Amino acid sequence: MTTPTIDLMHRHGSVRKYKPDPVPAELIDQIVAAGQRASTSSNLQAYSVVATTDPEKKARLQEISGGQSHVGEAPVFLLWCGDFNRLQQVCRYQGYQVEADYLENFLVSAIDTAIASQNAALAAESLGLGCCYIGAIRNRPREVVEIFQLPELVYPLFGMTLGWPVEPPLIRPRLPLKAVLHWETYQVNDLSLLQEYDRAMIDTGIYKGRQIDRADQDPVLYGWMEHTARRVSKPSRSDLRDTIVESGFRMR
Amino acid sequence: MTTPTIDLMHRHGSVRKYKPDPVPAELIDQIVAAGQRASTSSNLQAYSVVATTDPEKKARLQEISGGQSHVGEAPVFLLWCGDFNRLQQVCRYQGYQVEADYLENFLVSAIDTAIASQNAALAAESLGLGCCYIGAIRNRPREVVEIFQLPELVYPLFGMTLGWPVEPPLIRPRLPLKAVLHWETYQVNDLSLLQEYDRAMIDTGIYKGRQIDRADQDPVLYGWMEHTARRVSKPSRSDLRDTIVESGFRMR
Repeated sequence: MTTPTIDLMHRHGSVRKYKPDPVPAELIDQIVAAGQRASTSSNLQAYSVVATTDPEKKARLQEISGGQSHVGEAPVFLLWCGDFNRLQQVCRYQGYQVEADYLENFLVSAIDTAIASQNAALAAESLGLGCCYIGAIRNRPREVVEIFQLPELVYPLFGMTLGWPVEPPLIRPRLPLKAVLHWETYQVNDLSLLQEYDRAMIDTGIYKGRQIDRADQDPVLYGWMEHTARRVSKPSRSDLRDTIVESGFRMR
Repeated sequence: MTTPTIDLMHRHGSVRKYKPDPVPAELIDQIVAAGQRASTSSNLQAYSVVATTDPEKKARLQEISGGQSHVGEAPVFLLWCGDFNRLQQVCRYQGYQVEADYLENFLVSAIDTAIASQNAALAAESLGLGCCYIGAIRNRPREVVEIFQLPELVYPLFGMTLGWPVEPPLIRPRLPLKAVLHWETYQVNDLSLLQEYDRAMIDTGIYKGRQIDRADQDPVLYGWMEHTARRVSKPSRSDLRDTIVESGFRMR
């Protein structure tokens, strides 16, 4: 048993090659409005989206994001931000003081933003558009704050390129369901599950069959495990916390 | 122009009254598998879901979540967790050390989790199920860690009740689109936009027309602004950060 919406989800892949055709503003409206329909903590709606079609902005964002060419090429770039600025306004008007010291409200804004963005992404895909999340804007978050003139209590969480795909996206296999879904209590993943997935990812040809020789260790086939281990073992984006704290969220 | 998926999003509302009928495990599999299809940072898939149907667990979770009766009554409760435990395993096997000191990797896990959960929620709704996010499990996160036996580098982000709705959910209005969607640079919301929304929310009758008398201030009609100001002005969940740090994410 499946549904058209579930089928659509299974056709998802990130799009990194776009046609130059613009995306009508009405579609952006519709996509963000669909994002707004997602659940939001206590109906706070603690997020904002800043859309840009400006080639100069996109060129700078491409550079910040490590040179990913689709950031500059996509007709639209959406910046998704956690936002307590309007909630601060509401507090002031009603005679209260907004609480931004503790991690909780920061996390509320990050979760609200991510949930809304996924509805928007899927709405875009249902319209025949493609998109790609750009976490790499967190490489240099202060510059992103400056480019989009984000005020107090607004911070950049991630970007998203949006446009008409040149070709259907590559659909990557995901971890076996039983690695991710646990029943009653958490069960630490068997290494065999992860190795099974590593092989499935190597079989896609994404990694081009590379073999990695390493000092004092057996050579390994470069796959999801090696790729992932390199990715999550390097210290990264150490000024991210500072930028968010400067925005007013103290995350205590 | 719309699509069936966008229409489905516009019918979303949180469900807090469920029929006692169970949800077949095959549907849970399908819902979580749909969640897995969402975008994930560098394909890390840094999340896990723990499902429970156990009445004792659900009763405890209901109490932790401030007594929301649907937490105990829903046939299924899903706990959505940020998860770097399997990535730590991958690192160890490949001869690397996982980096969990900086905010970045914590945020990667939280965003991955939230994005996947929204696909799962919408997949469930497409199957005729209803759900409700439960942020209130963060009231007492250490107890949640203990109930679900979450290991190192796994922390509870939010819960979700799931089941067959007794009635169609209430669909709450959202902020005017122009409060949330900005073009080129962020524009601080006009207070009038927020007041417009306040009136729309009061018109739904949710707040029962209550008037609030306050010392030395004009009385206000209790609406979204007053409700929200109270909600975001109180210090909350001060042990959330400690619990996450104890899990191994140091969020520097």
